[in-house]
Amino acid sequence: MTAFDHRKYQPFPPVKLTDRQWPDRVIDRAPRWCSVDLRDGNQALMEPMSVEQKKRLFLLLVDIGFKEIEVGFPAASQPDFDFLRLLVDERLIPDDVTVQVLTQAREPLIKRTFESLVGVKSAIVHLYNSTSRVQREQVFGLDTDGIKQIAVKGAKLLSEYAARYPDTHWTFQYSPESFTGTELEYAVEVVDAVTEVWQPTAQRPAIINLPATVEMSTPNVYADQIEWFCRRVARREALLISVHTHNDRGCGVAAAELAVMAGADRVEGTLMGNGERTGNMDIVTMAMNLYSQGVDPCLQLGDMDRITRTYKECTQLPIHPRHPYVGELVFTAFSGSHQDAINKCLSSYNPGDYWQVAYLPIDPADLGRSYQEVIRINSQSGKGGVAYVLDREYGLQLPRWMQIDFSQAVQRQAEQEATELSPTAIWKLFKQTYVSCKLPYHLEGYQVTRRDKQDSLVAEVSIGGEPVSISAAGGGVVDAFVQALQAQSDHRIGVVEYSEHAIGQGEDAKAIAYVLLSVNGERVCGVGISEDIVNASLSAILSALNRSPAAAQPRAA
Amino acid sequence: MTAFDHRKYQPFPPVKLTDRQWPDRVIDRAPRWCSVDLRDGNQALMEPMSVEQKKRLFLLLVDIGFKEIEVGFPAASQPDFDFLRLLVDERLIPDDVTVQVLTQAREPLIKRTFESLVGVKSAIVHLYNSTSRVQREQVFGLDTDGIKQIAVKGAKLLSEYAARYPDTHWTFQYSPESFTGTELEYAVEVVDAVTEVWQPTAQRPAIINLPATVEMSTPNVYADQIEWFCRRVARREALLISVHTHNDRGCGVAAAELAVMAGADRVEGTLMGNGERTGNMDIVTMAMNLYSQGVDPCLQLGDMDRITRTYKECTQLPIHPRHPYVGELVFTAFSGSHQDAINKCLSSYNPGDYWQVAYLPIDPADLGRSYQEVIRINSQSGKGGVAYVLDREYGLQLPRWMQIDFSQAVQRQAEQEATELSPTAIWKLFKQTYVSCKLPYHLEGYQVTRRDKQDSLVAEVSIGGEPVSISAAGGGVVDAFVQALQAQSDHRIGVVEYSEHAIGQGEDAKAIAYVLLSVNGERVCGVGISEDIVNASLSAILSALNRSPAAAQPRAA
Repeated sequence: MTAFDHRKYQPFPPVKLTDRQWPDRVIDRAPRWCSVDLRDGNQALMEPMSVEQKKRLFLLLVDIGFKEIEVGFPAASQPDFDFLRLLVDERLIPDDVTVQVLTQAREPLIKRTFESLVGVKSAIVHLYNSTSRVQREQVFGLDTDGIKQIAVKGAKLLSEYAARYPDTHWTFQYSPESFTGTELEYAVEVVDAVTEVWQPTAQRPAIINLPATVEMSTPNVYADQIEWFCRRVARREALLISVHTHNDRGCGVAAAELAVMAGADRVEGTLMGNGERTGNMDIVTMAMNLYSQGVDPCLQLGDMDRITRTYKECTQLPIHPRHPYVGELVFTAFSGSHQDAINKCLSSYNPGDYWQVAYLPIDPADLGRSYQEVIRINSQSGKGGVAYVLDREYGLQLPRWMQIDFSQAVQRQAEQEATELSPTAIWKLFKQTYVSCKLPYHLEGYQVTRRDKQDSLVAEVSIGGEPVSISAAGGGVVDAFVQALQAQSDHRIGVVEYSEHAIGQGEDAKAIAYVLLSVNGERVCGVGISEDIVNASLSAILSALNRSPAAAQPRAA
Repeated sequence: MTAFDHRKYQPFPPVKLTDRQWPDRVIDRAPRWCSVDLRDGNQALMEPMSVEQKKRLFLLLVDIGFKEIEVGFPAASQPDFDFLRLLVDERLIPDDVTVQVLTQAREPLIKRTFESLVGVKSAIVHLYNSTSRVQREQVFGLDTDGIKQIAVKGAKLLSEYAARYPDTHWTFQYSPESFTGTELEYAVEVVDAVTEVWQPTAQRPAIINLPATVEMSTPNVYADQIEWFCRRVARREALLISVHTHNDRGCGVAAAELAVMAGADRVEGTLMGNGERTGNMDIVTMAMNLYSQGVDPCLQLGDMDRITRTYKECTQLPIHPRHPYVGELVFTAFSGSHQDAINKCLSSYNPGDYWQVAYLPIDPADLGRSYQEVIRINSQSGKGGVAYVLDREYGLQLPRWMQIDFSQAVQRQAEQEATELSPTAIWKLFKQTYVSCKLPYHLEGYQVTRRDKQDSLVAEVSIGGEPVSISAAGGGVVDAFVQALQAQSDHRIGVVEYSEHAIGQGEDAKAIAYVLLSVNGERVCGVGISEDIVNASLSAILSALNRSPAAAQPRAA
């Protein structure tokens, strides 16, 4: 069917470097990070981000602690231009944050790029052109000198235009794009020609970014390329060497880590590794890798719920359940021997000790998560678990996070009764655990009005028997309800996960809604069942709220 | 909210190895692969695989070309025991395939393990115990000698029991589990004690597996551990050194690759990196990495549709759209400059040439895929693309693979009309492209009977005007319909993706179904819309079939 034949490919040539130093190094401090989450073309999203989404993501990146944030390609994209102007006009760029913009080497683009940055306090202008042999020969039809002249011309234009706008603190960045496919000697030649124009100093360094535009080799070869380059390039003391790796071979994080050991000062990447094709280097993973070694990542990743929620809302991409540090299954143990080992380690762990727990490389609590055990009721009978029974017998399709949560209740019950639970008992327990949680918050009624893509909600809720009317507007009714509850109760409430489906068919069909709330930082699940989908959704939220420790202290209006 | 503080963690101690050789090596042939997809606990799946699913996955692994396949933990799990017996009884293990089973060092388990293997021609018995300092001290409460004696006792039991079953060709494997957390000198001491019992030879080697049970360091440190171990271990020439990496730091593939450079002969892993927590090493990625360097991976991965479909059906886990080599977005270009470069390279590429195409590390056709360009109709206006318009105006929630497919039709139309398309024009084009494809296959009626979890379907289909009655049974109605069509038409038809949702509400609500079929190896999308969900689904399948090149040659019954 397919032409599966490896002989179509050539091996990547190794770097001649016999006295390499990087394998003896250990990363003991964080590199300078640059987020490229907002890059041109929005990192190949099927749905480009709206201005509102870009703004939310930018503010998240600022809160996480990024000091260099690429905001796009203003000369090539009107939305990017407008977004940059919005950041300036609304004064959203903190004084200690430098925005970065991409541009090619043509004068109209460079002119427009500088226009887009008027009023910015500190900016990195990132010039690039493609230097690999394939691009020179097949795409540009230019020889090495012709390609170098593009870079030099661009470098001169950057110097000229920067001089016209003296109110901004300018940093220049140059990338020999497709660096991994470029002969190393030639890459040094082009970069030296560019910095010959810029004349950077240790006090005013230039950034030289060496992208693995396509990941083409094992990560050690990329590290060799970086070490070789750092030794040969001119004015090394006046340069910040930056890396920008991709994940075509699944080794983007490894390549960036080894490159930092090989001399790179700076790392470009994205949250969760978003980006074209297989994505960019995942900064969350690399930063957490440093963190797990006792190195300050210089990024605040503790509120991971907010990070993943904002990421998913803005990119409309899923996060894999096994994604390092953040996937929904990564702090979950299914095997009895793993559970036993974890429990023994946890029970002898004291706050203040170094973390040493088998099978848990970090403490899940650091990211607002908790360790979860899943015990399958029927693991020996091979008939599947709780979720299977609820699906087969009652048509429930529990999302994974709900399965994990509920399996713990089942386990407690099974231990108490010292027996296997029947489907009826499981279903009863499910309703007791989630659906019947109607105190102190109970929904009496509501009215929804939708206009201009906004839902306005007025809900009648009884709180410990006291009727209270709450209201808010939001992008959807769930959103509005959460905002109304939050305003009423003083609790910090966020929807982490939400799912719903129909049970049954025809006239008897009901809607079931599952929700995972974050209430004052604690995660709690809730479920609502109703003939009406809105009623089911709002009931699910109240179910979760009632189940949270916060529910014990409602604040009357 | 969370205690985000890196000071809780200690750095991983580096390996004292100043004359390492591995960074100068290049992998020029595939390692021995061992699939552990069927391991104990089914690699932490929320829903353990059924016997039928395990069988389907085992047969896939055999077809891919795995010669060593771990089939579970028969002494600890009755389903694993039963599954192994089923493989034996149904003679499903080819002569050139060796099955591997896991066991701990206790005699009742070892006895039962050998019982499970009666009648197997060739087997690897994989003995393990945990050797790390944390496990010794906190979990087992034993000193180094106590832990070593567990391994030695197990090794002796393996020798004794193997002698009782001389009809099977036995290979012994030992893992110092949690190897990455074990002092290297001690790991060598334990392994030497085990092989002292086994007395392996170059002709009858033992397998020594060194797992990164938890990934604890940058991948170069793991490679150092492997090189150090290989130099120091006794009887090296009589050992096959195996690695089994995990992905806690997102570097599982990198660690396995560098470990092979450092001397490992064998790699254990899973398809798509399935496995507990963040998963195991992804064999598909590592094998394709070799392939992309002109190295024969010794695995047949050309029918990637079948591999991913079977994987998803058996594990019930998603494949991320950016998963290397197999994700739905990895051969898609969104940026104009990338599209331009790819097109120039493709137009000068001749069959027989080495593959050298910018931004495409391999030819997508090798995996049954194709390169796709996505041009957003409104990219400059910032209002989103085709999917956004169809959603906002008509309530359609196109899955990503459908968006990619349809955007090409939109692009052709936009080029033809040299203008931007209105929402009405886009909707009309969508219906023309998919929904109106009613020839040669057209659905006239059907009857579905469900009994014992099987749907029996009889469908009246007209083919080029000729009425034909087709029928089949299947796990669901879509499944049954595809089987019936396949039997009738001689085409190889498989459902790669399927999605459906309601449009509108109340009495006017309709169901829309989207399907991505593989017809004789070609991918083609179809859509069905109807008041009835079954009708919509079956119509979607016929829409795709009618749109495929195969539809030109229907075979009358």
